[in-house]
Amino acid sequence: MKKGIAASKGYAIGKVFLQEHEEVVITDAKVSDVEAEKEVLNKALEQSKVQLSAIRDKALKEIGEHEAQVFEAHLTLLDDPEFTGGMLLEIETNSINAMKAVENVTNTFVMIFDSMEDEYMKERAADIKDVSKRIISNLAGKGGDAFAISEANTIVVAHDLTPSDTAQLDRSKVVGFLTNIGGRTSHSAIMARTLEIPAIVGLKDITTSVKNGDMVIVDGIEGICIINPEQSVIDEYTAKREKFLAEQEELKKLITVKTVTKSGRRVEVCGNIGSPADAEAVVANGGDGVGLFRTEFLYMDRDSAPTEEEQFEAYKKVLEVMDGKQVVIRTLDIGGDKTLPYLPLPEEMNPFLGYRAIRLCLDRKDIFRVQIRALLRASVYGNLAVMFPMISGLEEFQAAKEFVEECKAELRAEGKEYSEKIQWGIMVEIPAAAVYADELAKHVDFFSIGTNDLIQYTLAADRMSEKVSYLYNPMHPAVLRLIKMTIDGAHKHGKWVGMCGEMAGDEAAIPTLVEYGLDEFSMSATSILTAKKIILEQE
Amino acid sequence: MKKGIAASKGYAIGKVFLQEHEEVVITDAKVSDVEAEKEVLNKALEQSKVQLSAIRDKALKEIGEHEAQVFEAHLTLLDDPEFTGGMLLEIETNSINAMKAVENVTNTFVMIFDSMEDEYMKERAADIKDVSKRIISNLAGKGGDAFAISEANTIVVAHDLTPSDTAQLDRSKVVGFLTNIGGRTSHSAIMARTLEIPAIVGLKDITTSVKNGDMVIVDGIEGICIINPEQSVIDEYTAKREKFLAEQEELKKLITVKTVTKSGRRVEVCGNIGSPADAEAVVANGGDGVGLFRTEFLYMDRDSAPTEEEQFEAYKKVLEVMDGKQVVIRTLDIGGDKTLPYLPLPEEMNPFLGYRAIRLCLDRKDIFRVQIRALLRASVYGNLAVMFPMISGLEEFQAAKEFVEECKAELRAEGKEYSEKIQWGIMVEIPAAAVYADELAKHVDFFSIGTNDLIQYTLAADRMSEKVSYLYNPMHPAVLRLIKMTIDGAHKHGKWVGMCGEMAGDEAAIPTLVEYGLDEFSMSATSILTAKKIILEQE
Repeated sequence: MKKGIAASKGYAIGKVFLQEHEEVVITDAKVSDVEAEKEVLNKALEQSKVQLSAIRDKALKEIGEHEAQVFEAHLTLLDDPEFTGGMLLEIETNSINAMKAVENVTNTFVMIFDSMEDEYMKERAADIKDVSKRIISNLAGKGGDAFAISEANTIVVAHDLTPSDTAQLDRSKVVGFLTNIGGRTSHSAIMARTLEIPAIVGLKDITTSVKNGDMVIVDGIEGICIINPEQSVIDEYTAKREKFLAEQEELKKLITVKTVTKSGRRVEVCGNIGSPADAEAVVANGGDGVGLFRTEFLYMDRDSAPTEEEQFEAYKKVLEVMDGKQVVIRTLDIGGDKTLPYLPLPEEMNPFLGYRAIRLCLDRKDIFRVQIRALLRASVYGNLAVMFPMISGLEEFQAAKEFVEECKAELRAEGKEYSEKIQWGIMVEIPAAAVYADELAKHVDFFSIGTNDLIQYTLAADRMSEKVSYLYNPMHPAVLRLIKMTIDGAHKHGKWVGMCGEMAGDEAAIPTLVEYGLDEFSMSATSILTAKKIILEQE
Repeated sequence: MKKGIAASKGYAIGKVFLQEHEEVVITDAKVSDVEAEKEVLNKALEQSKVQLSAIRDKALKEIGEHEAQVFEAHLTLLDDPEFTGGMLLEIETNSINAMKAVENVTNTFVMIFDSMEDEYMKERAADIKDVSKRIISNLAGKGGDAFAISEANTIVVAHDLTPSDTAQLDRSKVVGFLTNIGGRTSHSAIMARTLEIPAIVGLKDITTSVKNGDMVIVDGIEGICIINPEQSVIDEYTAKREKFLAEQEELKKLITVKTVTKSGRRVEVCGNIGSPADAEAVVANGGDGVGLFRTEFLYMDRDSAPTEEEQFEAYKKVLEVMDGKQVVIRTLDIGGDKTLPYLPLPEEMNPFLGYRAIRLCLDRKDIFRVQIRALLRASVYGNLAVMFPMISGLEEFQAAKEFVEECKAELRAEGKEYSEKIQWGIMVEIPAAAVYADELAKHVDFFSIGTNDLIQYTLAADRMSEKVSYLYNPMHPAVLRLIKMTIDGAHKHGKWVGMCGEMAGDEAAIPTLVEYGLDEFSMSATSILTAKKIILEQE
């Protein structure tokens, strides 16, 4: 038995298929004909493009738009002047061979992204490695992806599965996968959840612990895999698997059920999204709306800020997909551990206590204006609510609202439409806002509690710091009190309160939050149905 | 008129004496006789020692023990194997001349200390520069300090005043000083306050704005100086000065007055200290006790942690000086922006939200044990209260208390005495502790509110960060509520509450804090009398 990180729920029982990547040895040689070597690289880049386009199309058809976007991003990387452009420049400047040039540029990129604390940024490093591996494989004449799996009930075991590996798994035969490395938020893990394939990642040495044909049980709930189990264990897990699948079927019936507590209180269960494509998964899982659209993802992986038109299109699309259901869009929350290449931030000793989110936006009206105008213009296409992150006091909310009025006046002068029905709220993620909620509630339309930051500030503990992450505790009595104060403060003035931090989807926390009177829960789309089930069981 | 930083209260009217430091040009030459050059440096170091010993003795006699300690520290630097030892090594290794060796080592040291955010550490850079200047001056044959001031009512104007300059000011003639650079917490500013000489620092270009003999008014309250004022202005400030001096006399009468509000409530006004020597100033200013002894200063400027014996002596001395009055000692608060050369800390992205204070002590029992044993042993010499910094929940306080019991058992086994009357409390400086105060109060003997950190965490704003320091506001309604919650929570269970952050000495905040029922105010010794006066005027 081995324990890893549960990455995708469910049980699988099957035979091991060991995916052994042929290691490509990177040669390092000076080249005399620089132009010819550049041509070699360009050819490998072209091959990579053809392969990735095919994978993207397959993903779009078989998995979903969001997953297909991963490969869209990979394709963009192949045209990135800094990335592949940098490789060509390396060949030209240093007369090195193509493989070495790919390796050099990749290492630089990976180093930059790996050093960031943000999970999302770390995943970008994985994307870059994935694309780089593909180029090198093509340079070595070993292009092509699909590994031939002929037997049904196969468990794929690999050191790591790249998103392209995962997208190409033959779902009629592969019933689970196990990897040495990876985390819960890696693209592969996310895809496994979407494909509903049980998976365990971070098993460290699973590739050397099993051989082809071994029987293995994957427990994607506990993160446990059992190698060559006895028949009694197989029987036990077969029963568990059937029970789980039946429960999943039951959960799916909740997609169209309104979430109402036993005492008859309506509670909204919504989804958190990072892109317009994510909204579809929210609808598919029966979400009542979008409780958090993290707009910073629109700003990432680019050389310059998205234009008003680009943002307008993104917001409009989400509103249209949600078709009249409420969409809460958070204005840009950059700074802290999230940085943008085209927006230099000051060096700060404690960036979490520094220049970020609304602080930055109120200081950089040039950036803020583009977003507010785009939001206002999109508002006519659905049911829009806008919230400002990192509000510590009334002045900031009022300053933001005044700026909105300024933008409205501009749009009116330009003859452009916007809705007067937008709700304007704030994230409650700074202790001051929770403590002062009853006063702030007089001025806002709603609150959304951002538990991830609220917990960090309330306990003065950065959960990214290994030495103090043990202090990070959503059920700390002081955290619970602040949540209660926020809800009570809002209800006193007839305002509603949502929650969009991880705690909202935490099965252990949901009963308490329902008891406190939380009006809206927002979480990842795949958690919505379970949350609905729990809420339906509360008083 | 020019505006700078008010560094020492009061008014002075007098004539400018421009202290023009002769710039010593540092020569940079290779030397052939390394041993002879080392001898040259050793001679300059000896001269420096003789001069500094004389200044120290003068300071001890004329100013006070704490100020004399500055020069004790300078003398220690002259024997520091890393500092002066490093200079000798530079000569030997690189065959450079003594002056260049002094400059090189100084630059390295200054760079290290200047890069730290802590005010105290920045001041260490100033000390190092001061000592270095003296050595170089002696190397140039320009030794000796005292600038001859012959006229009464002299205002000394300088680019910067080193502590040794300040200590040597002839108080019978110098009535004020003005400098281009410096801050409120520089040693010179602190000495000026102790000497009660009005002073303004940070005037940027005062040395080029006045000439010798100019008439100048120093307004050390507003931080304003007026050059060559009209007679009417002189008359105005003469009147202000007399009024101020009369008020100071009045304040001094309060030294022996018990602080009781108009409604008859007794309020303690205590002092914050960083060393045993500071305790004398607290007594001299009529303090009711020590509300905060920052023990980390015992750990600084050393190559290794202070021994149990050294700490025991320090705590015993403070308790004896305070002669039965209560002394609140805070256990080691290192980490965050305060580091020790002999205690490597993990690299953290947000050290303020990281491994520091009680978190570190509970993890490093080896370090904590020495301090707890020293505190226990010292407890028999007076009225001791001990508090733990950065407490976020009950578990931490209980773990600390359990460890204390362990140390008590050790001492009993060794036949060593300790008092059973020690009070055990916590700093309330993390929002969670304030929110949860009513529960914590059941377990502790007292609270001390650390406003500096409490405000930073409550507003998620690092006041050291230029971009967000505007958010740091002690009077933010959420901060005031947390203070009130802490006081109410403690009183509910019959416990007392002190405050040892800067807010406790803030004249604008004191009336509100009295109204909230704060039991004890602790501040710098020089603020005690004014605070007493304000408290006496409250209901």
